[in-house]
Amino acid sequence: MKRWIGLDIGGTKILGALYDETGKSLSQAKKKTKANEGVEVVMAQAYKVIDALLEAHQDKKDFELMGIGVGVPGIVTSEGVVEFSPNIPFRNFDLRSQFTKKYNKPVVIGNDVNVAMFGEYKLISSHTSKDVLGLFIGTGIGGAIIINGQLYVGQGAAAEFGHLVVNSDGAFCGCGAQGCLEAYASKTAMQRYIETQLNKGRPSSLKDFQKSDGAVLKSSTLQKSYESNDPLAIEVVQYASKYLGIAIGSLINMFHPHLFILGGGIVESLGKQMMPLILKEAERHAMPGLLDTVVFESSKLGDDAGIYGAYQLIKALEP
Amino acid sequence: MKRWIGLDIGGTKILGALYDETGKSLSQAKKKTKANEGVEVVMAQAYKVIDALLEAHQDKKDFELMGIGVGVPGIVTSEGVVEFSPNIPFRNFDLRSQFTKKYNKPVVIGNDVNVAMFGEYKLISSHTSKDVLGLFIGTGIGGAIIINGQLYVGQGAAAEFGHLVVNSDGAFCGCGAQGCLEAYASKTAMQRYIETQLNKGRPSSLKDFQKSDGAVLKSSTLQKSYESNDPLAIEVVQYASKYLGIAIGSLINMFHPHLFILGGGIVESLGKQMMPLILKEAERHAMPGLLDTVVFESSKLGDDAGIYGAYQLIKALEP
Repeated sequence: MKRWIGLDIGGTKILGALYDETGKSLSQAKKKTKANEGVEVVMAQAYKVIDALLEAHQDKKDFELMGIGVGVPGIVTSEGVVEFSPNIPFRNFDLRSQFTKKYNKPVVIGNDVNVAMFGEYKLISSHTSKDVLGLFIGTGIGGAIIINGQLYVGQGAAAEFGHLVVNSDGAFCGCGAQGCLEAYASKTAMQRYIETQLNKGRPSSLKDFQKSDGAVLKSSTLQKSYESNDPLAIEVVQYASKYLGIAIGSLINMFHPHLFILGGGIVESLGKQMMPLILKEAERHAMPGLLDTVVFESSKLGDDAGIYGAYQLIKALEP
Repeated sequence: MKRWIGLDIGGTKILGALYDETGKSLSQAKKKTKANEGVEVVMAQAYKVIDALLEAHQDKKDFELMGIGVGVPGIVTSEGVVEFSPNIPFRNFDLRSQFTKKYNKPVVIGNDVNVAMFGEYKLISSHTSKDVLGLFIGTGIGGAIIINGQLYVGQGAAAEFGHLVVNSDGAFCGCGAQGCLEAYASKTAMQRYIETQLNKGRPSSLKDFQKSDGAVLKSSTLQKSYESNDPLAIEVVQYASKYLGIAIGSLINMFHPHLFILGGGIVESLGKQMMPLILKEAERHAMPGLLDTVVFESSKLGDDAGIYGAYQLIKALEP
C-alpha cells in the first residue's frame, strides 16, 4: 500500500498527516515546533510527528512510504534548502538532506504558502488549468505560481505577491519596502486601519475585538460587522478589496493564468462580498479582454491546506 | 545542411533570415507588410520573404529546412493563434497553420517582444540562468518570461510588463487602464514628458527634436542632451528610471529570476547612466537580499533581435 506523508512546519506547531493514493488522510499528528529552542529541537519535533504517523501504520500489510512533502515558512530553494525563515531558526539549512538521511525516502520541501496553494490547486483544478496563480491573504500575504502544473519558485523567493508594489510612495511594509500589497490588504493592515479609526473615537461594532491587549482581528468578527452594515467594516473591506483588485489586475497582465485561486480566512469569510469589489478594480487595471478569460476560485482546505499541499507536492514526483 | 528561418512580422516591414545551426545568418530578406491591404496580402508578403530566402539556398547540397520561427505583434496563444494584433489585421488568426500548410515544416509563432527577448536570452545566457525576465523599453514596453529555459505565455498575453501597475491612481495608459509602467517609462511617455515641459517654455537642447510635426524622440538625441547635462534630459531619465526601478523591484518579488535582461533603444543608448538610478529604486522595493541575487544584462541584438529570437524559438523545438 503506497503511502505519503505531508508535513506542515509552522512557527508554533508542526502538523503531519499520512495519505493514501486517493488523497485520503489516514492519520494526523501534531507537536509544538519549539522554534526558540534551536534547529535540533525543531528537527526532533518534526521527526516525532513523522514517527507517530509511521508507528500507527507501518505494521500494516504491504505498507510502503513513498516520500515526504514538507512546507515551511520562508525562502526555500528548489533544492530544498531553507535560506531564511522568519519564525524558525533555519538559515541556509539543507532541510531536505536532513529528512532524506533520516528516512531514506524522496523528500520535497517548499515554502508554506506555495505548498498550501498548490494543495488548493490540486483539489480544485481541472486538468486544463495548467498555469495558475494563488493569492493567500492572512496575517501577511503570500502566494503561489503554478506553471504547467508545477510550482515555480525561481531562485527560491518567487510568488511573494504580498510584496507586489501597489502604491510606490505609499505605506511602509514590514519587509522594509514601501507600497507593498501586504501593507494594504493583509489582515494586519486591515486591523491597523480599524484600530486607527477606533482610536480616533469612531463608533463601530468592531471595537469589541480590541478588548484585550494584543488582540487579533478575527475574520469571523469582521464578517459579522460587515453583515450588520457597520460602516467601518464596510470601509475597510472596500479598502483592502481595492488594493487586491489592483494587484490582481497587474498579475493577470504579467501571467495571463487560466485559474486564479484566492485563499485565507478573510476570503473564506467574506469572499462573496469582496469578489465584486476586487473584480471591479481588477477590470480597471487588467488589459482589455484579459480578466474575462481567467477563472476565479476560493480556497477550500482551511488549516489542512499545508499538509494536503505537501502530500500533493511529493506525490507529484511519482513517475 | 540543417537550416532554419526566423521571421519578424512588424507593422511596417517583414524581416526574415536563414540561419545555420551555429546561429550564423546566411541571408536576409525584407518586404513591406502592407498591413492595411488585408490578411491575404500580408501573408503573401511573408511568403515572398521566405521564398526569397529559400531560393537563394535550396539548390545547395543537402539543404534541409528544419522549421520556421515567427514573431508578430499582439497576443499569440501557445498554439500559434494570433488572437489580436494592434497593427496587423490578424483576429483569432491561426497563423501557424497557414505557414505549416504552405511549407510543410514545423512552425512556431510568438509575440514579437517575447521572441526578441528570447533571442537576447539565448545570446547572453549561460546555462545556469534558467528563469529569466526580459523588459523591453521602446515606443511601448513589453517583455518576456523565460521559465526553465522556455518562453512562458500563459493563455497568450503573459509578460505584458508595460501594464504592471506602478501608480494605481496615476497616469492613464494607451491600453485604457490606469497607472501602467508604460505610461511612465516608455519612449512615448518620456516624449510626452519632454513636450509638456517644452510647451511650458522650458529651455532645453531637446527642443530640436520637435522641429517637424509628428517628430519622434530618438534615443540618440536624448543621450546627447543627457551627456551635455541638459536639466530636462536628466529629469526625464530620472523619472523613467524611477518607475522602471519600482517595476523591476516588484517583478523580482514575483519571479526571483536568475537573470534580468533590459532591452530597447533607450537602454542601449543610456543604459549605463540609467542602471544606477533603476537599481537604487528597485532596492527600495525588492525584498531584503533579493536584488543582489539577480544578474542584470542589456540587450545586444538591436533590430536583429526579432529574427534571431524567432530562429532560436524554432531551433529550440529540435529534440
